[in-house]
Amino acid sequence: MNQDYIQPNEWSIIEEGFDVESVKSSESLFSIGNGAMGQRANFEEQYSGSTFQGSYIAGVYYPDKTRVGWWKNGYPEYFAKVLNAPSWIGVNVLINDVQLDLNTCKKVENFRRELNMKEGWLSRSFTAVLANDIEVEVEAKRFLSLDLDELGAIHYQVRPNKDVKISFTPYLDSGITNEDSNWDDKFWNTTKITQVGQQAFIEAHTMKTNFHTCTYMESQFFLNNESIDLSPEKLQSATGITYKYTAVIKQNEVFTIHKFGGYTVDRYHDKDDLITAAKTNLTKANALGFEGLLSLQKQAWKTIWEMADITIEGDTKAQQGIRFNIFQLNQTYLGKDTRLNIGPKGFTGEKYGGSTYWDTEAYCIPFYMATKDQHVARNLLEYRYNHLGKAIENATKLGFTNGAALFPMVTMNGEECHNEWEITFEEIHRNGAIAFAIFNYYRYTGDYSYIPEKGLEVLIGIAKFWHQRATFSKDKMKYVILGVTGPNEYENNVNNNFYTNYLAQWCIEFALENIEKVRAEYPSDYRRIIDKTNITEKELGQWKTVAENMYFPYDIESNVYLQQDGFLDKELITVADLDQSQRPINQKWSWDRILRSPYIKQADVLQGFYFFEEHFTADELERHFDFYEPFTVHESSLSPCVHSIQAAKLDRMEQAYQFYLRTSRLDLDDYNHEVEEGLHITSMAGTWMSIVEGFGGMRVQEDTLSFAPKIPKQWKAYSFKVNFRNLIIKVNVNQNETNFEFEGDKPLKIIVNKRFVTINPNQLTVV
Amino acid sequence: MNQDYIQPNEWSIIEEGFDVESVKSSESLFSIGNGAMGQRANFEEQYSGSTFQGSYIAGVYYPDKTRVGWWKNGYPEYFAKVLNAPSWIGVNVLINDVQLDLNTCKKVENFRRELNMKEGWLSRSFTAVLANDIEVEVEAKRFLSLDLDELGAIHYQVRPNKDVKISFTPYLDSGITNEDSNWDDKFWNTTKITQVGQQAFIEAHTMKTNFHTCTYMESQFFLNNESIDLSPEKLQSATGITYKYTAVIKQNEVFTIHKFGGYTVDRYHDKDDLITAAKTNLTKANALGFEGLLSLQKQAWKTIWEMADITIEGDTKAQQGIRFNIFQLNQTYLGKDTRLNIGPKGFTGEKYGGSTYWDTEAYCIPFYMATKDQHVARNLLEYRYNHLGKAIENATKLGFTNGAALFPMVTMNGEECHNEWEITFEEIHRNGAIAFAIFNYYRYTGDYSYIPEKGLEVLIGIAKFWHQRATFSKDKMKYVILGVTGPNEYENNVNNNFYTNYLAQWCIEFALENIEKVRAEYPSDYRRIIDKTNITEKELGQWKTVAENMYFPYDIESNVYLQQDGFLDKELITVADLDQSQRPINQKWSWDRILRSPYIKQADVLQGFYFFEEHFTADELERHFDFYEPFTVHESSLSPCVHSIQAAKLDRMEQAYQFYLRTSRLDLDDYNHEVEEGLHITSMAGTWMSIVEGFGGMRVQEDTLSFAPKIPKQWKAYSFKVNFRNLIIKVNVNQNETNFEFEGDKPLKIIVNKRFVTINPNQLTVV
Repeated sequence: MNQDYIQPNEWSIIEEGFDVESVKSSESLFSIGNGAMGQRANFEEQYSGSTFQGSYIAGVYYPDKTRVGWWKNGYPEYFAKVLNAPSWIGVNVLINDVQLDLNTCKKVENFRRELNMKEGWLSRSFTAVLANDIEVEVEAKRFLSLDLDELGAIHYQVRPNKDVKISFTPYLDSGITNEDSNWDDKFWNTTKITQVGQQAFIEAHTMKTNFHTCTYMESQFFLNNESIDLSPEKLQSATGITYKYTAVIKQNEVFTIHKFGGYTVDRYHDKDDLITAAKTNLTKANALGFEGLLSLQKQAWKTIWEMADITIEGDTKAQQGIRFNIFQLNQTYLGKDTRLNIGPKGFTGEKYGGSTYWDTEAYCIPFYMATKDQHVARNLLEYRYNHLGKAIENATKLGFTNGAALFPMVTMNGEECHNEWEITFEEIHRNGAIAFAIFNYYRYTGDYSYIPEKGLEVLIGIAKFWHQRATFSKDKMKYVILGVTGPNEYENNVNNNFYTNYLAQWCIEFALENIEKVRAEYPSDYRRIIDKTNITEKELGQWKTVAENMYFPYDIESNVYLQQDGFLDKELITVADLDQSQRPINQKWSWDRILRSPYIKQADVLQGFYFFEEHFTADELERHFDFYEPFTVHESSLSPCVHSIQAAKLDRMEQAYQFYLRTSRLDLDDYNHEVEEGLHITSMAGTWMSIVEGFGGMRVQEDTLSFAPKIPKQWKAYSFKVNFRNLIIKVNVNQNETNFEFEGDKPLKIIVNKRFVTINPNQLTVV
Repeated sequence: MNQDYIQPNEWSIIEEGFDVESVKSSESLFSIGNGAMGQRANFEEQYSGSTFQGSYIAGVYYPDKTRVGWWKNGYPEYFAKVLNAPSWIGVNVLINDVQLDLNTCKKVENFRRELNMKEGWLSRSFTAVLANDIEVEVEAKRFLSLDLDELGAIHYQVRPNKDVKISFTPYLDSGITNEDSNWDDKFWNTTKITQVGQQAFIEAHTMKTNFHTCTYMESQFFLNNESIDLSPEKLQSATGITYKYTAVIKQNEVFTIHKFGGYTVDRYHDKDDLITAAKTNLTKANALGFEGLLSLQKQAWKTIWEMADITIEGDTKAQQGIRFNIFQLNQTYLGKDTRLNIGPKGFTGEKYGGSTYWDTEAYCIPFYMATKDQHVARNLLEYRYNHLGKAIENATKLGFTNGAALFPMVTMNGEECHNEWEITFEEIHRNGAIAFAIFNYYRYTGDYSYIPEKGLEVLIGIAKFWHQRATFSKDKMKYVILGVTGPNEYENNVNNNFYTNYLAQWCIEFALENIEKVRAEYPSDYRRIIDKTNITEKELGQWKTVAENMYFPYDIESNVYLQQDGFLDKELITVADLDQSQRPINQKWSWDRILRSPYIKQADVLQGFYFFEEHFTADELERHFDFYEPFTVHESSLSPCVHSIQAAKLDRMEQAYQFYLRTSRLDLDDYNHEVEEGLHITSMAGTWMSIVEGFGGMRVQEDTLSFAPKIPKQWKAYSFKVNFRNLIIKVNVNQNETNFEFEGDKPLKIIVNKRFVTINPNQLTVV
């Protein structure tokens, strides 16, 4: 896909003209989802060209047998993999018995695809001339319902230029394989195919994990928008069922199918009731019809946008970019179920084993905290709480004892899904982000109850881990943390990564502080937790010793913390002085060369300065930014956002804006030439942070919302809304002033540019 | 297999009693080879129990498609794999139409297997009662001829306890798969099967590499040792041919087959002449007969042992151990062909991709130099010279320029056969061992001619690599080498590994020294080499700067070189204080835990002290030995030998003896419970070094052979021979004195215990 392939538009993603080479990329970009399921924008009708078929059900995974070159003790034998599910969207189309297939048509014209983000639907229209010289105009529209999240709906209409026989053959198919499979194993087992009148159901369960699902469909037909009844021919195979509806249509008449379908899953229903549940969905769908469902869909997206929209005036591409990011985040995760999380590719591809990375805690939680009810962020915290047992098992496997917890690098169900020793065993800073998220949730929402109820156990497991993982160096007379990989994955197995050591120290201190607070304020919770975690005064004393005597590599000359021991031994040639033909280095250089270079993949020391901004002065931030950013190649999708926020804070607005552009249109402009594999969902939350925390300068300081609004010179104005403790505050920034607005019943004290400002409800406050 | 399974015997490996559980281990231990081919001790007759079938042809390999968990730039896409070849040893035996199969026999008694190392043959005898209640006594003997190294011979006789019909069905089979295969690909393609009278030939070639081979056979028959003529039934399939010879035999008569077979390969013949070459072998075999070939075999092994034998009096197991090691080394590599090398498993298994590791240069060359004609060691050097182009390609792929060479970690044909970044890209000290071997060869043989002819080009490629690989640290104002793995593979991606830095410095200095010498003494070679390698005075000046300013980590307090930067940050708990239940740590600990521990897999700093002994004082050796050995877990088969040598030098004879035991019977006593996968061939050369260099204290000092003989208190005496510059010197050490003997025509000056001694030819000198 070329850059500028997508039409600039404030509310829609639009592709015009049929480009065989872009089919797979567009299948990613135009993906739809509703938090419970999602699918790539595969065509409904047969397509014999290159395509990546994908339909996914949230939380339905398969533990694929690990593939590894050289085995290491501690690797998982199996790991959970995103699983391509049975398909329900297919509607093959026969025109006088010739398949409609854009890959074999004589001509395809007026091809247009639109993903309408405002209303949450995908449409496609084209004119095609088939091999039998019949020309048809086709319009298709589909969506996955936010209201009935087990249901999707398709409108598909054909207008022929001659009198012809048209057959619509909607089908279900459970003979599905994964693109990403290690050993070509079979993942799905089809149990039963059921036909009931015009309805069809395939019950299938996953091998090993035994997730039971029912994939279902029913269709309605219309001639020139008038409902008609048709009887299908039915064709059933071991893993599929097809209904063939045929009608003879006159020239320029419009023949339409509305297909309803989706999945019911034993996560939410008894496995013997899956067909019944599916029938309930179909009953509702039949009653509401396609248009009725669509109008509910528009309303549901309106509600989401009312909370989450960001407007940008004077820069259509930036506007489109931020809305695309917000839209995809909402398609991926809506916070209804603590067993779900935000996969790095959402429902748009299969790459990366599991669904949950430290991205959730470090990047996604701020977005969900500010644009949803606070229970959504709490659900994300509970997800980890529910995995605490597995995290303790994981740490035990690696030699830790007494309830120390190491959360996995990548997971679906709490078990580790990754097997590179330098990541799986050494990129342990993830544990710190999980603790930080608990702090961040409390700081933002003011809801302390989570900590005595659940969070403190997680904090204790994590603090135990850091206490045991740090070792005493007699040489330094300090505690050191050896053999880690920091957020900058272009260093492996380094000693005393500043970020990791700092986070470890903070985790222990934060756990100690909260143990004290819970002891004092929640005595019954305290007793339960002490009993469960076996912590003793002696152990807490040891934690304290470790935290107080943590070592941080520091360079006196430059007056900066060093990313790790030995960083100054490198050849410190900045990225600006690096031969541009060598970039991106992860494609051009062998791994050893990357490792011994000074180049930084994503914020590392600066990630620490982002999390713990208030621990450092602005001068310190500037010094470290100026020291590290010049060596940063930003080859992670998670890199530009943190740098954008810090550049904005340092009043370097042009640099901040450039970083913003890089993060916001990463997928739309396919910077990395890989969008066909799926979208970068988690970094999209970083785009949101770039605006709200970066340009808007939003922070929470001692229960008070604080802003330091700035605006790139390229924009006329921008606005965003945040849910702060159940008040929806709208912030509108233009080149001259900032306006605040919220609905409520009493004034709110906020900080703007370090000064307290009181804003009144239901009116505009101009600052 | 249990320890003590093998009977102690000075000249033979003996197994008594049939143990189903030990079949695969014994198949490894009783392997036979002749340098050109080799085979596991699989039974000739059918065996339906658990077995690992293996027959290997030297230098016939297959580039298997790489299997990797997480791809890194620079990994090889294919790598050469030891290839199981068509089998020619099979002789199925039918007794009244019932298969003789030890796995299904009613009874197996008097099972005895012997590998006669003195004479180079394998025998097996047993009495078995078949399902049809017939009892047979079986004796089998086979060997691979050293004289006709494309030929092997089998004697197989059956004596029944009743009048019966016996069929011998010798066969050839090219429908062969590898145990070690990444993608279950087919490796062999059978071209043609030819029958000529009693002879049979299968022409087959390897896929991709296209090695053409002919596997062949012919058999003779005897009744009570009288030759008889039999006509076979012939059965041919797509990948096999079987001749079935049947005779009716009376009770207690002896029916015998002599089967001759082997391989001809297009490495030594035109591919259209392979059958003709095979026929020539068969003609010789028929003329000499089994006994004639066997008597040649005995003579050939006698010649080998006359040069290579080590005797130990008063310790049968130690005697058996050292002979087993010397025997297996000679079965694996005889130095006839510069395209061959010493595989880590020889012809006894498939594990480890390629055939050549740094083991060859660091451990094997001293053995071959001292026990063979010097051209054998030179051939091993030329092997690398012939791979120089590929080593330059390899370095180029990793970003080096201008003819810098990085020899592969593991190879068959010069290309890298390994893909772990921390090894493939970072265990670069292998390059140093390859240069050291050139020095070592010259030091031992006095043959300088190799350097101007070939060696200097290799030295220059290696020096260029080190020059480019070292980078300047402004912080240390020294050249550093970042991101390496040293010989101690329990550390990865460390900075400034002392061994690597020291070797790098030495490589540059040695290259510079030899450039000067060749410039002065071999001007035409000098011009050729300068033209070819493009070295300039400026580049040589830079090399010198790097070598002169190389950084070595040092601890002033302990007064030792540090294994790497940061070594003192570790928790320095010695192996003695480590919970023994945690060992071996490579089976008990996850990789990160091993890496951050101080534990050392094999000599690292001490490997440097071994190579460059004369650069350090005895005090320095002692200090470093006392610092590092206590952290050494010796979990590499290559570890005990170097430590044994150094302990002996430090007069710690009990420790030296314990290290010796550990290396010499590693496979015979199956210390690591893995002998069924094959033997540890290269470490066997280390066993030899433990005696000759360790106990015997043999060195070469300025063209003079030097000894410092010591003897473990457990031994009465030991002796060894070395070929020093075409004199075979026999050294006999007992508890009181050392005797020297050699055949020659003039006295020889040697050093014994630091004093010059003149020994006269053809008489015993007692010291």
